Amino acid sequence: MLILMEKGATRDQIQAVCDRVRAIGFVPHEIPGSIRTAVGITGNQGAVSPENFMHLPGVAECVPVSKPYKLVSREVKPEPTIVDVRGAKVGEGSLSLMAGPCSVESRDQIFRTAEAVAKSGAKFLRGGAFKPRTSPYAFQGLKEEGLSLLAEVKRNFDLRIVTEVKDTETLGVVAEVADVLQIGARNMQNFSLLEAAGRLRMPVLLKRGISATLQELFMAAEYILSLGNYQVMLCERGIRTFETMTRNTFDLSAVVLIKHYSHLPVIADPSHGVGISWAVPALARASVLAGADGVMVETHPEPDKALSDGQQSLTLDVYRKLAQELGELAEWQARHR
Amino acid sequence: MLILMEKGATRDQIQAVCDRVRAIGFVPHEIPGSIRTAVGITGNQGAVSPENFMHLPGVAECVPVSKPYKLVSREVKPEPTIVDVRGAKVGEGSLSLMAGPCSVESRDQIFRTAEAVAKSGAKFLRGGAFKPRTSPYAFQGLKEEGLSLLAEVKRNFDLRIVTEVKDTETLGVVAEVADVLQIGARNMQNFSLLEAAGRLRMPVLLKRGISATLQELFMAAEYILSLGNYQVMLCERGIRTFETMTRNTFDLSAVVLIKHYSHLPVIADPSHGVGISWAVPALARASVLAGADGVMVETHPEPDKALSDGQQSLTLDVYRKLAQELGELAEWQARHR
Amino acid sequence: MLILMEKGATRDQIQAVCDRVRAIGFVPHEIPGSIRTAVGITGNQGAVSPENFMHLPGVAECVPVSKPYKLVSREVKPEPTIVDVRGAKVGEGSLSLMAGPCSVESRDQIFRTAEAVAKSGAKFLRGGAFKPRTSPYAFQGLKEEGLSLLAEVKRNFDLRIVTEVKDTETLGVVAEVADVLQIGARNMQNFSLLEAAGRLRMPVLLKRGISATLQELFMAAEYILSLGNYQVMLCERGIRTFETMTRNTFDLSAVVLIKHYSHLPVIADPSHGVGISWAVPALARASVLAGADGVMVETHPEPDKALSDGQQSLTLDVYRKLAQELGELAEWQARHR
Amino acid sequence: MLILMEKGATRDQIQAVCDRVRAIGFVPHEIPGSIRTAVGITGNQGAVSPENFMHLPGVAECVPVSKPYKLVSREVKPEPTIVDVRGAKVGEGSLSLMAGPCSVESRDQIFRTAEAVAKSGAKFLRGGAFKPRTSPYAFQGLKEEGLSLLAEVKRNFDLRIVTEVKDTETLGVVAEVADVLQIGARNMQNFSLLEAAGRLRMPVLLKRGISATLQELFMAAEYILSLGNYQVMLCERGIRTFETMTRNTFDLSAVVLIKHYSHLPVIADPSHGVGISWAVPALARASVLAGADGVMVETHPEPDKALSDGQQSLTLDVYRKLAQELGELAEWQARHR
Repeated sequence: MLILMEKGATRDQIQAVCDRVRAIGFVPHEIPGSIRTAVGITGNQGAVSPENFMHLPGVAECVPVSKPYKLVSREVKPEPTIVDVRGAKVGEGSLSLMAGPCSVESRDQIFRTAEAVAKSGAKFLRGGAFKPRTSPYAFQGLKEEGLSLLAEVKRNFDLRIVTEVKDTETLGVVAEVADVLQIGARNMQNFSLLEAAGRLRMPVLLKRGISATLQELFMAAEYILSLGNYQVMLCERGIRTFETMTRNTFDLSAVVLIKHYSHLPVIADPSHGVGISWAVPALARASVLAGADGVMVETHPEPDKALSDGQQSLTLDVYRKLAQELGELAEWQARHR
Repeated sequence: MLILMEKGATRDQIQAVCDRVRAIGFVPHEIPGSIRTAVGITGNQGAVSPENFMHLPGVAECVPVSKPYKLVSREVKPEPTIVDVRGAKVGEGSLSLMAGPCSVESRDQIFRTAEAVAKSGAKFLRGGAFKPRTSPYAFQGLKEEGLSLLAEVKRNFDLRIVTEVKDTETLGVVAEVADVLQIGARNMQNFSLLEAAGRLRMPVLLKRGISATLQELFMAAEYILSLGNYQVMLCERGIRTFETMTRNTFDLSAVVLIKHYSHLPVIADPSHGVGISWAVPALARASVLAGADGVMVETHPEPDKALSDGQQSLTLDVYRKLAQELGELAEWQARHR
Repeated sequence: MLILMEKGATRDQIQAVCDRVRAIGFVPHEIPGSIRTAVGITGNQGAVSPENFMHLPGVAECVPVSKPYKLVSREVKPEPTIVDVRGAKVGEGSLSLMAGPCSVESRDQIFRTAEAVAKSGAKFLRGGAFKPRTSPYAFQGLKEEGLSLLAEVKRNFDLRIVTEVKDTETLGVVAEVADVLQIGARNMQNFSLLEAAGRLRMPVLLKRGISATLQELFMAAEYILSLGNYQVMLCERGIRTFETMTRNTFDLSAVVLIKHYSHLPVIADPSHGVGISWAVPALARASVLAGADGVMVETHPEPDKALSDGQQSLTLDVYRKLAQELGELAEWQARHR
Repeated sequence: MLILMEKGATRDQIQAVCDRVRAIGFVPHEIPGSIRTAVGITGNQGAVSPENFMHLPGVAECVPVSKPYKLVSREVKPEPTIVDVRGAKVGEGSLSLMAGPCSVESRDQIFRTAEAVAKSGAKFLRGGAFKPRTSPYAFQGLKEEGLSLLAEVKRNFDLRIVTEVKDTETLGVVAEVADVLQIGARNMQNFSLLEAAGRLRMPVLLKRGISATLQELFMAAEYILSLGNYQVMLCERGIRTFETMTRNTFDLSAVVLIKHYSHLPVIADPSHGVGISWAVPALARASVLAGADGVMVETHPEPDKALSDGQQSLTLDVYRKLAQELGELAEWQARHR
């Protein structure tokens, strides 16, 4: 249930509502809006009676929430969430560009990439230090050394770092360097990791699981929000289907539906979505028009020599041209939305 | 195998090559290019020896074709195919807009729609007279009466008619009215129908089957081309996956891959792709940027009262606004490709 | 809706109910049961009022049918349907074994196979004369010549012929030889073919489409039953999923659910289901325990030389051993059901 | 690569080979066979030269391993692995029955179930204390209290406990009570958890991920084996497809293929596979015939009141009858394999 406060409700009135929610055994979530504040309730099994709240001063209305996901939904918070990453605002209407290699491989590689990414106008550098890999024998990232390189990049460029956290054990060290904690597709239902991310107060990029329905993605995000971390971005990165000519099936309708049902920003990742470098630019352009708040692409100085995902990485030249185009399209999109 | 003729090869030389192909038991396919002509060979089980042709005058080169689809592939014909539908050229670089209701339902409905579609600048009206339906008890179209209405529309508007043919029995009557024969997703592997369409000499719009791989789509088109009808457009209309929030999963990467591997024009159908009217415009816009040669959308004067597919049909007002936007984006796309 | 007649209702009373159904514009379907007769109604869009029938003599009850499939459902006909194929009764509790090559290839091949199949105790020989193939360049069956060979087999062995019909054009010639008309997976929603099969009065084996839901399979069968042909068997032959190690994913739960929701017999086809010959016997055995009324397997004198599906065909020796085992398991199953 | 020792190779000779593997930077895995011992090598990126080993005393042969999974494969260990769980041997040819509720809910519930399970002849009780759930608001298990109840059951019945571990944080407490650590479908690619399980020396039941290919399942198991824990059982529990009438699509061909490609025991879980209690017994019976080494089913004294998975749980009466039938079928299977 959602308790909508009156337009001029005072801090004390809101506080009293939250106290009342706790008193009957549930968890209050204060949700500020541009006009008025709402208080969401979680922790209840069945319906909560509005009678608990209607008599409290400042309460305007109690509305039931029909979806199994609550804090994530537009029902509870109609206005879009803007995630502020050290001044770069994701979800406010402009396009957030996130680019970089699959894995941090060397100082030279990450610095050359960072330079190109920064020059292109992008504000986010992606790059993995801890890499979950299907095979135990595959390259699993430079780990702590990779994090050090990312920290160094951060000191040298105006770039925010998006890097994956693969388990709770390394969450602490990753969170020290990351500006945005990426939770990967394979971990979308690693609930312990989601809960740990929920207890932090920093931006999280949550990738859709390889065969997750949108409802499951929303429920996974709900784990994070329900623990008080509302700085979550959702990411479409392709789903598993019968088609074998592409790595995954990039589901752009997911971008449209996420924007419709949720207030959280949505990032499109066509690199993983299609898995073929020559197909990435067209799908990146399409992502902007589908309404994505951000686009994440893999780029590498020498894709042929990449230790992972080389076949889907753009050369820096192709990336630069794409960044320019995406900027133009984002302007078109901003004028028409 | 593909026999490439020399730049100045004469008609007689080309003819002699075709005769030689027939003489050894196979079928020649003359493929004109902007610079030189090629002759494709089909009907062979294994490899054909180049020695059969290399000594013939005007023959420049014999190249093997690596894919199971041949006439459909860029290997055999690198230049894009332009399908000319009574002057409307699909595949030449501009955007072909195809709009209309799922089914022709009444004179009033189809005329009101046709008027809006024609005014929007679209050159194609879609509308079904014979409707394949999952249930034997569902509305199966107005049939011959629907065709008559489409014929009447054709006389009154500058619109080309795209309408579905569901079996060989009704192919004759449908082909009399249709400018473009649509072969639906459920019939993508109805090989008898494909062969019948291959024996015609008129444009065909072949929709991807609901769980067809791109290779299977190419092979289905190959049935048509191998019988001499090269006027084929391919259509992405969503595939079946585990996701239930959308009707299908609209696979925009298919548009990119079809353009890459085949010279045939590709049409995107976001209406069937996503199945939710409010999600169609964003995906239609994205389709243009993915590189589609055409976009097909369902529109209806009163979606709420539609006998089929109402939930995915745009109102005429929404359609008009969308048509305008797609035009702008097509211009952007033309400038940048 | 379903009109249940009283236990001793007379022929005239039943006839009067059918006449009344027609009089109000719908189609009656007389469904004999061991105790009493029911009359199903199709052709109605919405609910039909019981008041039309309750006053007629001999009418016991009018019950609504909740599923979109009606004649196919257990609601309408709780007792299992037994399809009698020249004395071989499919669905009566014993196991019907159907075996043979994918395609009829030669007199020697089909006679050697038929001999082994007949000796194994099986009553059905499968073998394709008209083969729908993904590629226009692949072997498409011996066609009429194949039918002649099947007719010859039929005269020489106590075997019923199961062979595929791929289009309405060849339905006539196929139906002359076939004892059971097989409608293949790709044609499950070829509604014109379903309607043509519905107008015949001979057994049909309807295969589940490669990505058909069970409800769609039921609706496809409903096309046939609604036209008066009730001799339909349903066949599970594997569905398309993301797994690539098997040709399809053999869905044995489909066998269980079909038996639950429908009265029609169900045949399991593990050969197409898994597509790997060494995996077929175990899945054939499992099929019996899942409750299949019949098992269909591909067997060939020389699988290595088969023109189609060799990789999933059993040698005659392996087949013979399997037939013996399936018989034992069918006995176990009969004792315990 | 796999180094096969001679039949009478001594301990010292084997040791010398292992030392040599380490000396060149890789990890040796001693794999005892009934006739002779093999030494597997992991940690290498490319091929390892046989010349490193062929001259060592006792080495018979060096064979390359063609699959990406190595220790898991039959290539490396042709003989089936038998996992000994306190005297109950899984994989030795008999059928291991594992039954119990989805979640431990109360002392009464788990004791009543345990009694029925023990009496049925099953040697394993399943029951979850820590439950990963899609929704943060759903029942997540009794946690430590649930473990205590399981420990109590263990002291009172001759039953081995199979219970899920959902994260590395609780691995310690779960491992104290569990005889078999279950790693659930959502955690199949939680590599940190796999590694932690690999460092233990106790039986693990690894469930196939909801959209995991068999190769990915093998690679996940490889994580555990490569760290020295070879007591792994694989479990098929249904995969995600387009079909909505069942909870998942139970892939029995997976059982057949796992037995073929791997030496590890395989357990079938039809309860999660189909998700409908009335469909479970038929699929459990089929699982035995498909060759499963064990069958795991959910049973509950009062399925209607279960806090999770009630719709797929058998009543204790249905379970008892099923256990009896599975025993008979396992005998048939043992006689014929």
